Amino acid sequence: MNELELIERLTRSLTTNSSVVVGAGDDCAVLDVGFAEEWLLFKTDAVVENVHFLKEAEPQQIGRKAIARCLSDFAAMAGHPSAALVTLGLPEDYDPRFVERLYEGMNSISQTYDVAIAGGETVANRGGIFLSISMIGKVRKDRCIRRAGAKPGDALFVTGDLGGSIAGRHLNFEPRLREAQWLAASFPVHAMIDLSDGLATDLPHLLTASKVGAEILADSIPISRSARQRAKESTSAKPPLVAALTDGEDFELLLSVASKDAVPLLDGFKQAFPAVRITCIGRITAEQGLRIRDKQGVRPFTGHGYVHFEKS
Amino acid sequence: MNELELIERLTRSLTTNSSVVVGAGDDCAVLDVGFAEEWLLFKTDAVVENVHFLKEAEPQQIGRKAIARCLSDFAAMAGHPSAALVTLGLPEDYDPRFVERLYEGMNSISQTYDVAIAGGETVANRGGIFLSISMIGKVRKDRCIRRAGAKPGDALFVTGDLGGSIAGRHLNFEPRLREAQWLAASFPVHAMIDLSDGLATDLPHLLTASKVGAEILADSIPISRSARQRAKESTSAKPPLVAALTDGEDFELLLSVASKDAVPLLDGFKQAFPAVRITCIGRITAEQGLRIRDKQGVRPFTGHGYVHFEKS
Repeated sequence: MNELELIERLTRSLTTNSSVVVGAGDDCAVLDVGFAEEWLLFKTDAVVENVHFLKEAEPQQIGRKAIARCLSDFAAMAGHPSAALVTLGLPEDYDPRFVERLYEGMNSISQTYDVAIAGGETVANRGGIFLSISMIGKVRKDRCIRRAGAKPGDALFVTGDLGGSIAGRHLNFEPRLREAQWLAASFPVHAMIDLSDGLATDLPHLLTASKVGAEILADSIPISRSARQRAKESTSAKPPLVAALTDGEDFELLLSVASKDAVPLLDGFKQAFPAVRITCIGRITAEQGLRIRDKQGVRPFTGHGYVHFEKS
Repeated sequence: MNELELIERLTRSLTTNSSVVVGAGDDCAVLDVGFAEEWLLFKTDAVVENVHFLKEAEPQQIGRKAIARCLSDFAAMAGHPSAALVTLGLPEDYDPRFVERLYEGMNSISQTYDVAIAGGETVANRGGIFLSISMIGKVRKDRCIRRAGAKPGDALFVTGDLGGSIAGRHLNFEPRLREAQWLAASFPVHAMIDLSDGLATDLPHLLTASKVGAEILADSIPISRSARQRAKESTSAKPPLVAALTDGEDFELLLSVASKDAVPLLDGFKQAFPAVRITCIGRITAEQGLRIRDKQGVRPFTGHGYVHFEKS
């Protein structure tokens, strides 16, 4: 039994009750706690030393990132976060100034997005720093955007530029919270997800949840400057398009809307957020699976799509 | 800077907003998210391998305990928990069956108390198993019991028997959720806390928050059978009264009510919960600090009260 099989097995038998609108498997849990017009969103996300960061990293940036990752999940459902709790596992030889700076980073971004840090706890952890954030917030029932809901014919959009986040953006990205709230308030967005593991991994999550497929256009993928730069500087780096499709931690939004809303969305978004790019990268199809179209034609893009892509 | 100083310093500068009714420093965070008559309760609590349990412990019991500890914090505020998220840190060499049984224990007690496990995540953690539970729920604004609120003259009550929890009860205790909800619905409970670190540590938390003192009666402390048993079996064990005052993980409720409510509370509680003991152990005083009265008279019981007590 591998990890994915284990998680699938555990997820199937989780205890539920009448409050659960959406459980495991979307960006946040969605709970009906008795509001007339709103649901509660509930999320937990951890960053761990030697997995998500090295001890040498700037502690303010680690703290900032831990909170920003959760905010990005709230963005993916067009939610409004309100409060967080911090669970901090510390090794015996921890440096108090490191912890203070970690909190500086968490406080700073929490202030920016008006999220309270309402407490938490510190516990011993032999393996290093383990920083887990729990966050709650709300979303209007008619504006909660799930991964499920994309329809054949929908236009697929992505915010920002993709790839090469490791060069720095993974630490200082702005969660697309305001953008997501504006999108959900302005258009019937059918489905949305934030890109944490890369388009080639996260788009299939959206497609599977929506029981549809998609065709994306290679030429339309917005490739980040750092992905291009890295390819230029090293022959061992991924080609820019591959980086844009497969690099993790973009923390951009991927969403689908009816094709009739595509042009109004492009126009409206540019006016509302002149500094943030938004790009139509393809369309949703009734035929399942992910395909990519370039000058050579249309090819399937499988689960291990980037390997296939690099070799083809 | 030691750990307590660090936490105090961090706690002072946490980001807040208008939703925070009670932040760090009570059993749960209390949030006003816009309900007319209810507040949201939000709690996170972790159990860590080699700190809270050894790898040899029964995984079902570890899972059960992780959830039960959070439920006990909801009990301390007379709250109604509704959903939990599970953050599970796993070492590389983890056993999938161990994780399955951990979840069995979490699911079983969650079903008993109608709490949904609405998702969470699994991450790598070199140091061993790190199991953090986040829980949300609600409480009626007029029935939310805090640590602050005890008044001079109040009678102090404790549920159950104290001490010797290490013999087994720390793993299979029932959180006093129903009892707390009944107490808050039946009487104006002034202050409440759950006993996780022992009466000698947790009562001072309640007193400090309430800016009062207390006098407890040595003869009235309900000493558990296992605390007595352990004292009988080993001369190196704590005397039973010391164990009842200083052993951790009782997970019983400690509460104060106006003296006029003391007898009706005793009567009503016995009828509602015939299998659960409730005992008046003393009274709240305007004079700050904690004092204990026995046959020799009244003595101060300081922060390191049990040391003082053992030596005197």
